[in-house]
Amino acid sequence: MIIHLNKDIKSAEAAKIAEQIKAFHIHSEGTEVLITSSSVKELPSEVKGKTEEHWVFANDMQLASREYRKETREVQFGNVSIGGNTKNTILISGPCSVESEEQIQQSAELLKSLNLTTLRGGCYKPRTSPYSFQGLGLEGLHLLAKMREEHGLKVITEARDATHIDEVIEHSDIIQIGAKAMYDQGILRACAKANKPVLLKRGFGSTLQEFVQAAEFLLSGGNDQVVLCERGIRTFETKTRFTLDLCGVAYLQEYTNLPVILDPSHALGYRYGIEKLTKACVAMGVDGLLVEAHPNPSVAKSDAAQQLTHEALRALKTAIEPVAKSVGYNIV
Amino acid sequence: MIIHLNKDIKSAEAAKIAEQIKAFHIHSEGTEVLITSSSVKELPSEVKGKTEEHWVFANDMQLASREYRKETREVQFGNVSIGGNTKNTILISGPCSVESEEQIQQSAELLKSLNLTTLRGGCYKPRTSPYSFQGLGLEGLHLLAKMREEHGLKVITEARDATHIDEVIEHSDIIQIGAKAMYDQGILRACAKANKPVLLKRGFGSTLQEFVQAAEFLLSGGNDQVVLCERGIRTFETKTRFTLDLCGVAYLQEYTNLPVILDPSHALGYRYGIEKLTKACVAMGVDGLLVEAHPNPSVAKSDAAQQLTHEALRALKTAIEPVAKSVGYNIV
Amino acid sequence: MIIHLNKDIKSAEAAKIAEQIKAFHIHSEGTEVLITSSSVKELPSEVKGKTEEHWVFANDMQLASREYRKETREVQFGNVSIGGNTKNTILISGPCSVESEEQIQQSAELLKSLNLTTLRGGCYKPRTSPYSFQGLGLEGLHLLAKMREEHGLKVITEARDATHIDEVIEHSDIIQIGAKAMYDQGILRACAKANKPVLLKRGFGSTLQEFVQAAEFLLSGGNDQVVLCERGIRTFETKTRFTLDLCGVAYLQEYTNLPVILDPSHALGYRYGIEKLTKACVAMGVDGLLVEAHPNPSVAKSDAAQQLTHEALRALKTAIEPVAKSVGYNIV
Amino acid sequence: MIIHLNKDIKSAEAAKIAEQIKAFHIHSEGTEVLITSSSVKELPSEVKGKTEEHWVFANDMQLASREYRKETREVQFGNVSIGGNTKNTILISGPCSVESEEQIQQSAELLKSLNLTTLRGGCYKPRTSPYSFQGLGLEGLHLLAKMREEHGLKVITEARDATHIDEVIEHSDIIQIGAKAMYDQGILRACAKANKPVLLKRGFGSTLQEFVQAAEFLLSGGNDQVVLCERGIRTFETKTRFTLDLCGVAYLQEYTNLPVILDPSHALGYRYGIEKLTKACVAMGVDGLLVEAHPNPSVAKSDAAQQLTHEALRALKTAIEPVAKSVGYNIV
Repeated sequence: MIIHLNKDIKSAEAAKIAEQIKAFHIHSEGTEVLITSSSVKELPSEVKGKTEEHWVFANDMQLASREYRKETREVQFGNVSIGGNTKNTILISGPCSVESEEQIQQSAELLKSLNLTTLRGGCYKPRTSPYSFQGLGLEGLHLLAKMREEHGLKVITEARDATHIDEVIEHSDIIQIGAKAMYDQGILRACAKANKPVLLKRGFGSTLQEFVQAAEFLLSGGNDQVVLCERGIRTFETKTRFTLDLCGVAYLQEYTNLPVILDPSHALGYRYGIEKLTKACVAMGVDGLLVEAHPNPSVAKSDAAQQLTHEALRALKTAIEPVAKSVGYNIV
Repeated sequence: MIIHLNKDIKSAEAAKIAEQIKAFHIHSEGTEVLITSSSVKELPSEVKGKTEEHWVFANDMQLASREYRKETREVQFGNVSIGGNTKNTILISGPCSVESEEQIQQSAELLKSLNLTTLRGGCYKPRTSPYSFQGLGLEGLHLLAKMREEHGLKVITEARDATHIDEVIEHSDIIQIGAKAMYDQGILRACAKANKPVLLKRGFGSTLQEFVQAAEFLLSGGNDQVVLCERGIRTFETKTRFTLDLCGVAYLQEYTNLPVILDPSHALGYRYGIEKLTKACVAMGVDGLLVEAHPNPSVAKSDAAQQLTHEALRALKTAIEPVAKSVGYNIV
Repeated sequence: MIIHLNKDIKSAEAAKIAEQIKAFHIHSEGTEVLITSSSVKELPSEVKGKTEEHWVFANDMQLASREYRKETREVQFGNVSIGGNTKNTILISGPCSVESEEQIQQSAELLKSLNLTTLRGGCYKPRTSPYSFQGLGLEGLHLLAKMREEHGLKVITEARDATHIDEVIEHSDIIQIGAKAMYDQGILRACAKANKPVLLKRGFGSTLQEFVQAAEFLLSGGNDQVVLCERGIRTFETKTRFTLDLCGVAYLQEYTNLPVILDPSHALGYRYGIEKLTKACVAMGVDGLLVEAHPNPSVAKSDAAQQLTHEALRALKTAIEPVAKSVGYNIV
Repeated sequence: MIIHLNKDIKSAEAAKIAEQIKAFHIHSEGTEVLITSSSVKELPSEVKGKTEEHWVFANDMQLASREYRKETREVQFGNVSIGGNTKNTILISGPCSVESEEQIQQSAELLKSLNLTTLRGGCYKPRTSPYSFQGLGLEGLHLLAKMREEHGLKVITEARDATHIDEVIEHSDIIQIGAKAMYDQGILRACAKANKPVLLKRGFGSTLQEFVQAAEFLLSGGNDQVVLCERGIRTFETKTRFTLDLCGVAYLQEYTNLPVILDPSHALGYRYGIEKLTKACVAMGVDGLLVEAHPNPSVAKSDAAQQLTHEALRALKTAIEPVAKSVGYNIV
């Protein structure tokens, strides 16, 4: 249940009630909001007469639901907004991993030349083998920070686990929670307290219900700058790396109030169809795209098969713009 | 291995060699063609000196592969062609099941008013329960035939199993092989001998390799009017009925020479997101769409939740046309 | 709904009522039984006063359910019974495909020497590629018949599609409906009318609900000698061929009244773990096992990797007997 | 590649070489061992003449593989050993969550009365909703410690994320890495340095390759007391909570040198079939079992449907002992 308390209730009183009824307490757009489990169907006596409005839910998809908020939330990535009424589809690009200053410099310059604003690059790589390249770590974060300063770009990078989440929160403009970390409450709880936008990727073995509930950890903890990212789920099909779940995207667009970003690169796992898949995503009116590009994919230290060349990213941007226009969106 | 015999080899001689080397034998565009298992890597001695060209393959995706034919095959649905250089995306619509003359008449009129050419409607429904509506059978085929005569439409309907495949081949302009029948060799072998286009749906538990190999049954049996149809695969996600596999579509477009049609209705299973999903399909440059619509979905005898109203189909057509244009395609 | 009509109602009257209320009508153990969709929750007026007992169901798992029949049905495979109170676990073996008289003769002799009664062997192979060995067809059926005559064995073989189901029904003692044919109503309807036991395999992409509903086609059509066979489902795991669903077996044992046979060979797809997996099945108290064995697996024309040598089958039988005893069952 | 250095090479020198060739360095049974990526196929020049033995691998399943060590590793859980030549199947039980002293006391007493040695109980619950019971945290760890002191039991509990892994390592005798944390390198790296056995659960969306590679993080980091736990994977089937992957267990037993423990409770998700499934696991000769039991399952704060009553756990132990004997194992 979500409860909007009366306007005259102060934050301290709200906090006290929250404790009494074991609810989460957040402050949202001038309102003190309490959130309990969806198993609560009747207004608790503690809030009787103190409630402006309340919502009862069938399950724990509450703050993220369109039943609660009809409009998609607007989230700011630097100067660029997505969601809300913006009709913007942000194209985020960059390499899978930050590998060297020279490499990330080339990526940053590519983005600038394409009028793109947000640079991605992994520093803590959640590799499944200990014997693979694990990322540059803090050194990578510093390289990203340098790109921000030199080029005015916003940077997005992921935390692999909770041991370095503070570093990532400090150095990244948008915090990415990767697919393998979607259930990581150490990361989720830290991000809930951060005053930065969070891009939450769906675990490849996670249901939509679990995915949205992971977002509820962020929202109920006080961070409402949450963006969902579908990046492919694991199915029986092996010709492609994962299966991009656009039916799931249709569901998220219909039933949640959060912007949705798509990552076709990880889904397909191969360069050849990225442009077509990206067009498909754009045509659905999604709020953003994560497309990996590398100055020289053949020597990439991770995900070599799926990263586009810089030339291919240019072509992709040109190719998706008319599709975006055809559905009333702008690529930003 | 695919072998193109020399032009001076007559069909009878080709047939004889085929028998000797246990190969399939088809006649294609003036050439006698032999096809063996892909495990054959060296030209058999029986064809030495008689071969114009031959192709060796890593697996049994042979006649359907782009290694064999670079261009997508063109397939004729009545006056409308798809594939080849046509840049056509055919929109096929109609109800899940043919239920009555009045109903299918309304569907036919809708299609005419939208300048659409091809009417779908199930007569032999492959229901998973014996206690559900099983379709009108032959009576349904006759109703479809009536619509063809009255409205000049082409009709497409599916065979549930091999016991009535001859009826379906006789009465339908395009023969649909449903997802549950994808492995049905009784149907596949009959369709291979039919002189009509075949729309082959991917089994929801079938890999892309198996899907293309099912098409090889048709192609190696002599029918080259084959269209693939992706309609969603079964995954762990239960919020949606199936998961439309657009990564798989990217694979099929890259590696096979067959036109690809998409069925977003069965994939999602709910009306709400069909328009968006259809846009996604269109943006990939697919060759066609199967979208279910019913004059009154709430009383439909099967798949009530996913069929569009006629009004919604009109809106969908209007909505997808600019998307098609943006990628250089026409909705036909 | 299942309705048991009063004992004084004759078959002809029952048939008439069935037509009126669009119900299936079977005769079972001296009772006229009508079965309607589970959506019927109230007794139809046509049977008021004529009903001995009736059952209402949440879904279309009706005749197969334990709500309807508490005891597992007993099914006769020749002189051997399974299910009921027999505590028998039948071990069915033989090669994947019948390949030659010499081969199937060796298989038959092996079975005799192990006191086993039921020989399997595929004649119509549902291969996914047209370029693979497709089975000996009718010739294979004749070889199996010969083994029956010479060795007194019962034989089980599968129909690939409805075009040859009559042949299979004629020549086989137990009719197998393979995983790829589970939805094939041409086969299901023919088997429903056959007076022989049917072993129905679960489709590898089929839910338990669909699996049991396929059995309902057989039961509601009048054949109550139905045995379910779990043979592995398709999942994301690729180290093994399929994933044997023993959780599903637990469900079937709890909620259905049909004997359950397990096929570990197709599930794992490799020889190495078949003995261990078979022990696991036996320990669950299953009613039977299908284990493939070949006189010389390395030259087998299908499924070479998973067929046991004859020596290994002997060892397996010895190994599983104490496990069966430990749970109160006998290997027969 | 795994390299065993000559016996006369000291640890410091080994460490130096490890740095030069970017290898992991562990000390194992008197030998200095270096491990590089499996992509290294030729002995590096730095170790030429210093190598006693080395192994080349097709993929990064190296230290865990039977190619490297033929025998299953023996792991000590207090006074009880599993793996090696022990033929022990350890039965670990206890509630899903530690909920109160009274509850866990009852659980501890049950275990003592059954001569069981190892008590499970979750303190940091990785719930998918923020609005569910999240576990008692440190208070729970203290209750478990109390049970160890009072009853001489060993306790096992899981870390939800890296923020409290140190607490768990300190208070738990065996550290559990839960399914949702399988990729959590913060946890894996901390456990690799801990001198305690680690039970690593397979992620429900994780392949066997990834599962074993997660174990490689532990092994290559210096902890060789690693036990694998299969607990069900996520498939399309929804009648059961997950699908216990016994084909996968057969694979792990064949190809890895690590003990394998099975968790039928989480796999099935319902009490009814736990005993049968547990028998199946035992019959495979697995090294252990995790079976949830609660003094009063109907009021359990998590996983109420799947926890056995204490009476049912007693019955289960009695039921599985003869099965264990039949395959030469002892329940301990």
